[in-house]
Amino acid sequence: MEEKKLPKVGEYHLVVDPFDVDFSGHLTLAMLGNHLLNCAGFHADARGFGITRLNEDECTWVLSRVALEFDDLPMEYQHFSVSTWVESVMRMFTARNFEIKDQLSKTIGHARTIWAMINLQTRKPVDLLNINEGHLVDWINDEKECPIEGPSRIKVTSKEPVETISIKFCDIDINGHLNSMRYIEHILNLFSLDFFRTHRILRFEIAYIQECLFGDRIAFFLDHDDTGTYQIEMRNAASNEVVCRSKIVTAER
Amino acid sequence: MEEKKLPKVGEYHLVVDPFDVDFSGHLTLAMLGNHLLNCAGFHADARGFGITRLNEDECTWVLSRVALEFDDLPMEYQHFSVSTWVESVMRMFTARNFEIKDQLSKTIGHARTIWAMINLQTRKPVDLLNINEGHLVDWINDEKECPIEGPSRIKVTSKEPVETISIKFCDIDINGHLNSMRYIEHILNLFSLDFFRTHRILRFEIAYIQECLFGDRIAFFLDHDDTGTYQIEMRNAASNEVVCRSKIVTAER
Repeated sequence: MEEKKLPKVGEYHLVVDPFDVDFSGHLTLAMLGNHLLNCAGFHADARGFGITRLNEDECTWVLSRVALEFDDLPMEYQHFSVSTWVESVMRMFTARNFEIKDQLSKTIGHARTIWAMINLQTRKPVDLLNINEGHLVDWINDEKECPIEGPSRIKVTSKEPVETISIKFCDIDINGHLNSMRYIEHILNLFSLDFFRTHRILRFEIAYIQECLFGDRIAFFLDHDDTGTYQIEMRNAASNEVVCRSKIVTAER
Repeated sequence: MEEKKLPKVGEYHLVVDPFDVDFSGHLTLAMLGNHLLNCAGFHADARGFGITRLNEDECTWVLSRVALEFDDLPMEYQHFSVSTWVESVMRMFTARNFEIKDQLSKTIGHARTIWAMINLQTRKPVDLLNINEGHLVDWINDEKECPIEGPSRIKVTSKEPVETISIKFCDIDINGHLNSMRYIEHILNLFSLDFFRTHRILRFEIAYIQECLFGDRIAFFLDHDDTGTYQIEMRNAASNEVVCRSKIVTAER
């Protein structure tokens, strides 16, 4: 019961390592994603529903969707903080939110994430209301607000791929799948350096639909409109199955 | 003069973040490289010859060569340490060595690196015996041994590229060049997941020869022999100039 003394919101203090920045000196989106997932892990572990505890029950968390909005990103050597909390728990999914603050404690971004849990043997979903003796719901925080919209429906109509890649060794994570953050990198790699010199990302969404394995050929389909919104679909080129969808809202700098 | 009180060898304590591991759960080579460069930065900054101080003089460090040997690599969530020191200083180059220890303080690897310094305006080499009022030599440590061979001469004879890639947005660092660690990833990406399931790397060498820019097409040439040694040359496909050479010594698991 000692766990209960922890606050519902966990806050973690981080610093931007010099090699984790892009051409502009700002933390990359993939590294920001890594930090958010790490903070989610710290928060869950400390409260009895982290990977370590769940693996004993042969379960694991699966990241399903992310929506991320930011006004700014920290630069190399700068300190920043990530707060995270559970917003809701349903049978199949739980919502976890994040707030990102800069070195002066000014809020610079938010994220909403949706997670499922699967059994490692059957790969089938597990009822979240039953795990950890039903105590996951005790951690729901309904005081802190997350003022961004949740993940939206992404629909791509383009039929001609703009790019096709093969999944390579350094893409693969400890589960033998395409690393969650590498999906983001491959999506951003559809754009040019000049695009990011002249545009900034206001909102980034990703929906993870299927795992990718070493050697898989992945085709990228891209729709965009004149409001600076890009919708991307990644398909397994062999099966034509959708593996991921993403939406990026940009503005000119 | 207070700086002089610091030991010549700097030791830094690190932990393997969960998303920095490969399929086997071990720290990736690129992330190990990042950690070594970060530790080099901490060591140099604290002793008055880091990037921050040098930028005031419009100079910066340029990594020229790396040779790395290891018996083991730490796994996710494990603690490890990196010690680093200056071995020698000449006019054009300085040698910096590293020792890597696991969570039980057992030595698991070593690295030798060679660095030059350039003027940011002219991009020409700077005399290392003159920087920081000649005090760089005061930091030479001749007590600690680095029991691995230095970078060797790498010669690739193959004329047919095994792979050609384009440099993409997420490859680019704050200087607008291919990130040093991404060279390593692109080289490892020449090999299959099955190769790394059945082989382990004993020694990895890389010689950085030329910068790569966004959009550059890079061709990879590969020689290998039956002792498990692979030699790789990266060439700019447009100019045919060599941008990087690497040697990887492997053994069957």
